[in-house]
Amino acid sequence: MREVAIIGAGMVKFGKVPDYPAAKMGGDAALMALEQAGMKPTQMQATFCGNIGNPPNIGQRVNGEMGITGIPAFNHENACASSSAAFRQAFLSVANDVHDYVIAVGVENMTSHIASGVMSAGPLVLPHGANVEADNGMLMPGVFALLGSHHMAEYGTTEEQFAKIAVKNHAHSVHNPYAQYQKEFTLEEILESRMVCDPLTLLQCCPIGDGAAAVVLTTAENAKKHTTKPIFVAGSVLTSGKYKASVEGPVQIEACARAAKECYETAGVGPEDIDVIELHDCFSIHELVAYEDLGLCPKGEGGRFIDEGLSDYGGKVVVNPSGGLLCKGHPIGATGVAQLVEVVWQLQGVCGKRQVPDAKVGLTHNGGGFGPGNEPGAMSITIVKS
Amino acid sequence: MREVAIIGAGMVKFGKVPDYPAAKMGGDAALMALEQAGMKPTQMQATFCGNIGNPPNIGQRVNGEMGITGIPAFNHENACASSSAAFRQAFLSVANDVHDYVIAVGVENMTSHIASGVMSAGPLVLPHGANVEADNGMLMPGVFALLGSHHMAEYGTTEEQFAKIAVKNHAHSVHNPYAQYQKEFTLEEILESRMVCDPLTLLQCCPIGDGAAAVVLTTAENAKKHTTKPIFVAGSVLTSGKYKASVEGPVQIEACARAAKECYETAGVGPEDIDVIELHDCFSIHELVAYEDLGLCPKGEGGRFIDEGLSDYGGKVVVNPSGGLLCKGHPIGATGVAQLVEVVWQLQGVCGKRQVPDAKVGLTHNGGGFGPGNEPGAMSITIVKS
Repeated sequence: MREVAIIGAGMVKFGKVPDYPAAKMGGDAALMALEQAGMKPTQMQATFCGNIGNPPNIGQRVNGEMGITGIPAFNHENACASSSAAFRQAFLSVANDVHDYVIAVGVENMTSHIASGVMSAGPLVLPHGANVEADNGMLMPGVFALLGSHHMAEYGTTEEQFAKIAVKNHAHSVHNPYAQYQKEFTLEEILESRMVCDPLTLLQCCPIGDGAAAVVLTTAENAKKHTTKPIFVAGSVLTSGKYKASVEGPVQIEACARAAKECYETAGVGPEDIDVIELHDCFSIHELVAYEDLGLCPKGEGGRFIDEGLSDYGGKVVVNPSGGLLCKGHPIGATGVAQLVEVVWQLQGVCGKRQVPDAKVGLTHNGGGFGPGNEPGAMSITIVKS
Repeated sequence: MREVAIIGAGMVKFGKVPDYPAAKMGGDAALMALEQAGMKPTQMQATFCGNIGNPPNIGQRVNGEMGITGIPAFNHENACASSSAAFRQAFLSVANDVHDYVIAVGVENMTSHIASGVMSAGPLVLPHGANVEADNGMLMPGVFALLGSHHMAEYGTTEEQFAKIAVKNHAHSVHNPYAQYQKEFTLEEILESRMVCDPLTLLQCCPIGDGAAAVVLTTAENAKKHTTKPIFVAGSVLTSGKYKASVEGPVQIEACARAAKECYETAGVGPEDIDVIELHDCFSIHELVAYEDLGLCPKGEGGRFIDEGLSDYGGKVVVNPSGGLLCKGHPIGATGVAQLVEVVWQLQGVCGKRQVPDAKVGLTHNGGGFGPGNEPGAMSITIVKS
């Protein structure tokens, strides 16, 4: 396999913009990534697009917005990890010499889905009636609230510890002009915001929103021609979860632990080497549990990890400098690539006030579809190096 | 790249079965393909699933129906070519040594989409309001009716010639137990059926339906261990269309002509070498125009090709022995892989009364999203050999 590099990254500001069509958002993000790479749309050989609910052939429509046609476009759906699947196939296409220059895009206009009735407010619960748990109210907040309650019972984790993650990520978002929300909150404000699903209060839940992000990939060898700051893909894993046979054993998302282990091995690094992580904090609880699943701390010690500030500036690793899904937002299909955009920019050292000092190794963690219902979701871990 | 073989193929009978969940249909098709390959679900290393409108993470759900978890699942959307995109990535994953054994699945339950309001009766027109032409009535029948009218004006093609394609495909379907419809019609009955969009009458339009299909892929070398009848993938192309700058020039789908040329070159064969074709006859008109785009006859002579019976048993090449989309049915995400299933079975010589004698080289032609609107669609051509 050829070594692969990211040579350009771009995104649009996340927010609620129902009249900004998904394809146009994707095209704008792609043009920004191409501009950073110093390349023209016509130099791209294929497009890989992650999306969950916008019109068919979204990749072709994004290409149309860039003014290009006639190249392969692959459109990927993997719930909240849709554009991580697109990125993985884009990466493989360059690594395996199928293409030399490709673009990976993630795009979602959720507010237009909801206005049109395609998507309900429980964003993974399309009106298909095929999911008994969801039909009876087990939507995403419930899934993660249960995970959190289980974690509290097993390891003594507290509501305050979950809430501190939201405090951190909201504080980070203030310095991210691409974030949907850019406002700080105190621990009390987080805890006293409206209860969504005990122990999750509103400010610990990611919002509905719209957005797009894109990265341009080529070989490590080609990369030198285009940028002085190529970012190399050191590890890329996408897998699916397994049914949990029992409530016994660690309170974890097993697919995350398994994918992370494989990705560290491929990349030749360990959790202690990671400087910056964009982590799938759809709910504060997920970030705390993922500290453990990613090996940043032992199982059960996620609460102490946030208490001691180890996932913040000055700690062991900065988690979600962008504000994360909680504050930057979570337009479903856009998220995987948007995480890569932030990590690429961090490793390029262009993040201004939210810059992680001397960041050299970054990781993205993106999960899709872990409940409701009985389908094991998708889990993607990617490690990049400067 | 490693040579790739298909070692098992399966499908469910197409039809209108709103209570047969998409994932269950996909699982049943996959289990049939695995049985033909003499393999267990747990031997699969990844699943690639084509689908357009069923619940998220459909590949994971199909895996769940097979009783497997924990492997990568990629879900592909490319309008009516969705499972051809899935097949292409499945093929590449084996060719490029990412995986040794994978399954490609296509699945769609359209009747449940329509019942739930996710999909309108114009199957590519989701209620997103982003498509001016579609909102004003330019749905798929209109797109192909215009193509047909243009062809008639340019080359003197007649309504009868288009209708003869429907006569042929309906006649073929009688011998296909997997077809949604299995009934012969006379030329008069085709022409006198309800007018949908001039010159397309009802019996020249593919139906709404549900179904699933699957193929198991491995390397040519591994294939020998599993079957005495491996079918080898000789060429695989997926591209997108281009905007047409003018009505001048040949009346064609340019992406088809381009993809076919590339696929013939890769496979080292020409149109004269093909014994059997499963062709994307969403409307009779598309089949006639594709005769020319695929190089079976010169541009403008598609009418003569059907008049002389050259696309039927005893002619140059048998097109749509399955009955095609017109009669076998067109559950959108299922179609690309279902075409491969028929061609694989033909090359294995197991097609009973609809068997194409001595079939050694087969081709599938699958297009997705050529109108309505301004997006250039996906076009897939695959050539297989026994």
